[in-house]
Amino acid sequence: MRRLAGATSLDYWNMAGPFGGITAATLLNAVLLQPDRLPVPLALTVSYCGAIREGGFDIAVRCLRGGRTTQHWAVELTQGPERDVMASALVVCVLRRETWGAREARPPEVEPAPAQFGSRLGMGPPWIQRYREHLVRGELFRGNPHSETVTWIADAPARPLDYPALAAICDAFFPRIFLRRPSFVPIATVSLNVYFHAGHQVMAEQSSTPVLAQASGQVFNEGFCDQEGRVWGQDDHLLATTHQMVWYKE
Amino acid sequence: MRRLAGATSLDYWNMAGPFGGITAATLLNAVLLQPDRLPVPLALTVSYCGAIREGGFDIAVRCLRGGRTTQHWAVELTQGPERDVMASALVVCVLRRETWGAREARPPEVEPAPAQFGSRLGMGPPWIQRYREHLVRGELFRGNPHSETVTWIADAPARPLDYPALAAICDAFFPRIFLRRPSFVPIATVSLNVYFHAGHQVMAEQSSTPVLAQASGQVFNEGFCDQEGRVWGQDDHLLATTHQMVWYKE
Repeated sequence: MRRLAGATSLDYWNMAGPFGGITAATLLNAVLLQPDRLPVPLALTVSYCGAIREGGFDIAVRCLRGGRTTQHWAVELTQGPERDVMASALVVCVLRRETWGAREARPPEVEPAPAQFGSRLGMGPPWIQRYREHLVRGELFRGNPHSETVTWIADAPARPLDYPALAAICDAFFPRIFLRRPSFVPIATVSLNVYFHAGHQVMAEQSSTPVLAQASGQVFNEGFCDQEGRVWGQDDHLLATTHQMVWYKE
Repeated sequence: MRRLAGATSLDYWNMAGPFGGITAATLLNAVLLQPDRLPVPLALTVSYCGAIREGGFDIAVRCLRGGRTTQHWAVELTQGPERDVMASALVVCVLRRETWGAREARPPEVEPAPAQFGSRLGMGPPWIQRYREHLVRGELFRGNPHSETVTWIADAPARPLDYPALAAICDAFFPRIFLRRPSFVPIATVSLNVYFHAGHQVMAEQSSTPVLAQASGQVFNEGFCDQEGRVWGQDDHLLATTHQMVWYKE
């Protein structure tokens, strides 16, 4: 068991705790900081157990099992004297190597990102201002018949894309139920899953260029809905696929 | 920490260990056996850390955090005197309740399942005989240009569908790379994710009727590929969505 310490940032604050994407990035980064980890993250699953309080937190990192090409980690973020578990994650790191390959998924056909674009909302919690976003398809709170959105998104201020930033972007989609319902409903991400499909070279090629993010929901049922997302980089590279389950109150 | 003990079953044996689906079902069931769990499983993620050896194993179940509507669990399957971690899982259980709902995803248009069908392969590891399967689309080892398969599948012998059985079916898809490559390549599931979209009533309505299972891969790259799957029940209910990352050698 390896222990790290950190603190929340008000820059990434959401409504009742940190933006879930920054928590995902923090948990992933706790593994990436380990000197004996395999070079490339492959999978990240986060259970959001409770609303993280403003201030300090502890992170425990445990290598469950290591192999030559695959390595499994468990990460827990705790707060307070009782070490209340606020978030728990499973992370897989791997060694990638040359093999036969193929891409089946294709990005949506959209115009290139505008040269300049800013934050999409003038108001809202602080984390929204940490992204520049240009919405291609989908509008919130219109009671749409489907929940698909397509959007160009980039970190603000600009920074080269890395795996923690990509993990955070995977939770930066607006909740799918905001696309379907005519007005705001309380929501909370319960579980987030990210698969990373790019090695270091493709990640480096992204630099700080906006990525194309596409998401939709399949089912809204009895207080919970899902979200499937894809994040596309330069040259139609699918950088990440992501899935989450969200609690909603309606 | 709560401890359970179990043993592998040769009936569900794969090539170098148990079928991953039975391991997923076993880990989920370890949570479902807890008397204080919330009634409905929502999410299950399994990290397959190592090949489980034939014989006994221990399972440790820990409630990370419980709320009124959401409850987070961690489960670990270990073997041997050193408690080697062979599989680790995060499970979310919830209380479902009446809310606004919608279904966006639609099942593929297919003929109804034949009244009678058997196991698809006459040979292969034992677990394959634990399913009856009728393939609608997709053929193995033909070097297809895409990896989609659609198949009717049911437990053999027949039993009413429950959440562990559904979790196992989510890993019963043939590896996507078998659809793309002309011949066998070694594979191993690294990480499996299952979201359950149905409450107890819809699950009970399924009885032992075959479910319709659809899967495809998005990316095959540098030794790892993904799989997205959907499992459809009676009346076009989407019972589960599932995602996994798979190591392959080529």
